[in-house]
Amino acid sequence: MTYSKGLHILAEIDTAVIEALTDYAAAKLLLQKIIEKHRLTIVSEVFTNFEGGGFTGVYCLTESHISIHTWPAFERVTYDVFLSNFRNNNEAIVRDIYKELVTFFQPTGLNLNELYR
Amino acid sequence: MTYSKGLHILAEIDTAVIEALTDYAAAKLLLQKIIEKHRLTIVSEVFTNFEGGGFTGVYCLTESHISIHTWPAFERVTYDVFLSNFRNNNEAIVRDIYKELVTFFQPTGLNLNELYR
Repeated sequence: MTYSKGLHILAEIDTAVIEALTDYAAAKLLLQKIIEKHRLTIVSEVFTNFEGGGFTGVYCLTESHISIHTWPAFERVTYDVFLSNFRNNNEAIVRDIYKELVTFFQPTGLNLNELYR
Repeated sequence: MTYSKGLHILAEIDTAVIEALTDYAAAKLLLQKIIEKHRLTIVSEVFTNFEGGGFTGVYCLTESHISIHTWPAFERVTYDVFLSNFRNNNEAIVRDIYKELVTFFQPTGLNLNELYR
């Protein structure tokens, strides 16, 4: 068995949907649904709203991780979706999660990097 | 105040130091020391050894996150160090953490990506 590189998508989004940046509840609910849909396995989750604005959310998965950091003062969110291909090829799932989050944050600007690692 | 992009270093390392990949204890201790040295603020931490090999470790920081995923069967580790510049310019700290982990994992092969985001 050889190592099959997993897709890691890193996005930076500008958005006017400030309420999506100031509280993690809606983003977490969305991610829960997506994780269930794709039958990914949660190891642990960390979601924290920061006083004064913004939140950090991380789902640690057996398949790797999803992380979100928001900056409402800058109307900005950065997020990563990284799934290994250890048991299955998860590339299409990474792309789906990326797209679901794009739909959620309604970008006015978007920068994207894709790495295989 | 304008948004100052933070440095996100993503590394993939091949290593023969298998004991560093099969249990998170040593890597976690190292990261704790580095986080203290640079006075970063931990929001939460998640470290899990997987049955059959490898671990996932994530430090969620107010400054963003550090994540490590190991694959002992492939003698491989992937890690990310991402610190925002919200209160301070943390670029030098990202580079220091990256280097400390390189020293720890003793690469026989290394691939590196640097993003400002």
